[in-house]
Amino acid sequence: MKVLALDTSSIVASVAVMDDEKLIGEHIINHERTHSQKLMPMVDDLLKSCELTMEDIDLIAVAEGPGSFTGLRIGVATAKGLAHAMNIPVAGISTLDALAFNLPFCEGLICPLLDARRNQVYTAIYKWEEGDFLSIDGPMAITLDELIEKLSVRPERVIFMGDGMEKNAEVLTKSLGNRVVFSPNTVKMPRASSIAQLALQKAAEGKIESFYALTPNYLRKSEAERQYEEKMKRCDQDGCGKD
Amino acid sequence: MKVLALDTSSIVASVAVMDDEKLIGEHIINHERTHSQKLMPMVDDLLKSCELTMEDIDLIAVAEGPGSFTGLRIGVATAKGLAHAMNIPVAGISTLDALAFNLPFCEGLICPLLDARRNQVYTAIYKWEEGDFLSIDGPMAITLDELIEKLSVRPERVIFMGDGMEKNAEVLTKSLGNRVVFSPNTVKMPRASSIAQLALQKAAEGKIESFYALTPNYLRKSEAERQYEEKMKRCDQDGCGKD
Repeated sequence: MKVLALDTSSIVASVAVMDDEKLIGEHIINHERTHSQKLMPMVDDLLKSCELTMEDIDLIAVAEGPGSFTGLRIGVATAKGLAHAMNIPVAGISTLDALAFNLPFCEGLICPLLDARRNQVYTAIYKWEEGDFLSIDGPMAITLDELIEKLSVRPERVIFMGDGMEKNAEVLTKSLGNRVVFSPNTVKMPRASSIAQLALQKAAEGKIESFYALTPNYLRKSEAERQYEEKMKRCDQDGCGKD
Repeated sequence: MKVLALDTSSIVASVAVMDDEKLIGEHIINHERTHSQKLMPMVDDLLKSCELTMEDIDLIAVAEGPGSFTGLRIGVATAKGLAHAMNIPVAGISTLDALAFNLPFCEGLICPLLDARRNQVYTAIYKWEEGDFLSIDGPMAITLDELIEKLSVRPERVIFMGDGMEKNAEVLTKSLGNRVVFSPNTVKMPRASSIAQLALQKAAEGKIESFYALTPNYLRKSEAERQYEEKMKRCDQDGCGKD
């Protein structure tokens, strides 16, 4: 089974093609966030480089979130469009699962951190145990203090990654001391190949979906939704100019 | 410092650009071994995608071997050519170091296996210890039995990768039992980003070289050299038709 994987959940745009045997190709660009312009040409270039066409693809995989709202919408809309056009299934993969999967068999807890603004991070906690990749906690949108509280009660060292890593490096080191490990450049940002690998596993477990069911997993309401709800609440309280 | 990294040591062709902050871009193609045709267009495409030119590059890094003799010659010749033309230094990085570095912070021994034909593998043994990436043994060209003997006396589990992994999977499992772990598709083959990261570390340690000094590290004599030497030896013994 050949899977085409897309990840536009962060500033990085990444596409990959993988089958059960190998990673056939991967393009990663961490340059400027113009995913809407870059994504389809990236898919096109990658398929050409691998002498493949969309007809060869059996499954579309996409980073479903959490992450940049605009990025997720572009990725998920593109995945749904391609899957619809080719009449093939899709697999939505958690951005956090895929980031943590950049570190196979690593020792300690893995903690991807995505900057969620408003003083929060999107995060989750993972661990490899006897060859199995386990989710320990999350996904969640919490403050860094809340995360540190969760990590403080555990004995393991913690390996951080994601676009929230550098921003919070000082506070993390101050709070968790020498238990803190920062990922190198090679693995700290999303890779579509990790999305592809997790999608193949999902497919093997019979968990792939129709493109109709796929939606982004924002994990938190958007700023626009939040403001709208607050406005509606004020309206209810004040009567919004009604008698 | 911006490094352009090339890896053509195996059937995979891979190029990456990285600076001290991030992986700026990476292209990986595992399709057909026509590196001589593909490598320069891949460099060109990657730089264009990142809106960079060769003028922006401060250092060329290349997988220096061991690996496919033809692949290594193409990679090293291209690296030397680019470095010469731009008058910038190069960093030759061990293919085995870079493969093992695909698994940061992993628990257990890391053992990249490259098929060296003639019943041998190119291999080395690594370990992460308290955040440090340590070389335990090798690089070496040995038989699988010799490698298994070395691994048998150690207690850790062993994580394999490289193009010699699948070919030898059955024998490894039979000999080392449940201590054997096979890498997923995402990390089992070379990635130029690992070459780039190790080159930046080498540069930080002041260990970069002039392009004049760079040569492939074949680790073993080529078939042609071996046959030539055998022929010469026979000549010495037989007198090669002389009186």
